[in-house]
Amino acid sequence: MKVSVKVPATTANLGPGFDCAGMALPLYNIVTIEETVLPGTGVEINVIQGNDSIEELSLDHIPVDENSIVYKAVELLYNMIGQSPSELKITIQSNIPVARGLGSSSSVIVGALIAANELLGRPADEVALLSIACEIEGHPDNITPAIVGGLVISSQEDDGSVIYRKLEWPQEWAITVCIPDFELSTDIARSVLPSEVPIHDAIFNAKHLAMFVEAINSKDVELMKWSLQDKLHQPYRTKLIPGLEEIQSKLRHFENVLGCVISGAGSSILIISQKNNLDNLKDIVREIWANQNIKCEIKTLSVENNGAQIVTNED
Amino acid sequence: MKVSVKVPATTANLGPGFDCAGMALPLYNIVTIEETVLPGTGVEINVIQGNDSIEELSLDHIPVDENSIVYKAVELLYNMIGQSPSELKITIQSNIPVARGLGSSSSVIVGALIAANELLGRPADEVALLSIACEIEGHPDNITPAIVGGLVISSQEDDGSVIYRKLEWPQEWAITVCIPDFELSTDIARSVLPSEVPIHDAIFNAKHLAMFVEAINSKDVELMKWSLQDKLHQPYRTKLIPGLEEIQSKLRHFENVLGCVISGAGSSILIISQKNNLDNLKDIVREIWANQNIKCEIKTLSVENNGAQIVTNED
Repeated sequence: MKVSVKVPATTANLGPGFDCAGMALPLYNIVTIEETVLPGTGVEINVIQGNDSIEELSLDHIPVDENSIVYKAVELLYNMIGQSPSELKITIQSNIPVARGLGSSSSVIVGALIAANELLGRPADEVALLSIACEIEGHPDNITPAIVGGLVISSQEDDGSVIYRKLEWPQEWAITVCIPDFELSTDIARSVLPSEVPIHDAIFNAKHLAMFVEAINSKDVELMKWSLQDKLHQPYRTKLIPGLEEIQSKLRHFENVLGCVISGAGSSILIISQKNNLDNLKDIVREIWANQNIKCEIKTLSVENNGAQIVTNED
Repeated sequence: MKVSVKVPATTANLGPGFDCAGMALPLYNIVTIEETVLPGTGVEINVIQGNDSIEELSLDHIPVDENSIVYKAVELLYNMIGQSPSELKITIQSNIPVARGLGSSSSVIVGALIAANELLGRPADEVALLSIACEIEGHPDNITPAIVGGLVISSQEDDGSVIYRKLEWPQEWAITVCIPDFELSTDIARSVLPSEVPIHDAIFNAKHLAMFVEAINSKDVELMKWSLQDKLHQPYRTKLIPGLEEIQSKLRHFENVLGCVISGAGSSILIISQKNNLDNLKDIVREIWANQNIKCEIKTLSVENNGAQIVTNED
């Protein structure tokens, strides 16, 4: 039996939405799990470069971390029904660049879980899959949109359950993803955050995230510009992304730019704008990063409204 | 010339919406400003008990604070056009109990500002009135609904301007205001708050306030129950309101209760529920407070969708 699952990339945090808001993007990893015929062969995991990968940026190295989380995801599913995984060949077709704040780890966790779940006759429903995937990843903001698609606000509770709601991203707003050639591990990006923050910063983010929801629902450009501010993670992480401050400061002069934020924990950045004048915005990022000897790939993407999907299921 | 302005009471904070969410309620103060005929008589301020005041609870004493903020509000308006207030008789018909977290100070600030503005030929527009009123009050969460009505999320910027959006409160949700016979000054309620909070509490409130907006917009009972949690102000203030923990804990067993939160900075509390079974909820509050020798007035109210209104304008 062979199951392939296609899982979208995701961007998370989205301005004031630290550890809460996430959005699926049309760039995919495909995780295939195949039962092998030779008994006792254990679990073999291979990563291959996908056809849509960003040539220069991904697969600089085999993502060892993602191997281990893939195994962990599959093992958890097998353990749920009292088994251990063996005689499996897992292949990850990797198109989502690694350690760039685009949810590559979430995508392989979700892909492996859904494929293993299918192989085992679906012991887990969506609620359980969400909960297990968030448990492995540690937070729900990439996992939830990777599973359900679209723009999502979500929260994982102490009991493991995930509460989420989908919001409708205004189709007239462009999402331009700027992916630099350097990685930024989530661990490092987490390590620069303080454990306590001024109460005024907490109030600041709460009201901005509330207005963010309202801006999305009412497609309100001016409110969105105001909403996309954050004091909980970006002030601490900006220094980890060379050129970001200069990029943000230049983009502020463009009437059609709604905001420029770190994607997830970085290193990618996201420009949210109206759909005109995109080439000028991209040129600014390319030029500033070129001055810092940073190569980059810049793509304007739409929202992927579908979450992970089974694309092959062969007996 | 004589101008009377009717201004609604307001509840603020509303669970996760500390310093951001506020709602107008159908209980009113009326501020009247009259030009007196005798020159050089200065500004006289009188407070009288309104016809709808809660007999036992309001006007235990003349609200001196409110006298001074009324004068300040009027003075600011006169100063705007290069004048000083004099030969004015200001009367506050007080129906909103003082220092109970029901926006009594906001209501007199707003009433005095709008009445003075009217007397002076409207030198200030709504934007300016909002900004001045928030400046006097220190935060926008009561002022904004007192001026514009309804349920509002708002923020005052560094430049004094106020950003707000109205949300539509689901008519099927009841707001039961429980007003105890003791006062709680906003200054004391502010003094128990820490200047820094755990980053996890900041994330907690941001995502709960985001879901609160979504719950209101989609009239989602289950989401509202989840959303009405807060870690920014109530954990610190609960001890200032005897019986609150016990009330909250008992109300949690009622399927129709969406939440029980502190109104503003207290001392009143708010039960948000569906419209059935209200007498049982009220009995619980009455009984627990009676055991603590606290007398109270409990009213189930609807949202007041209108903000402050000029009710008399005589030449």
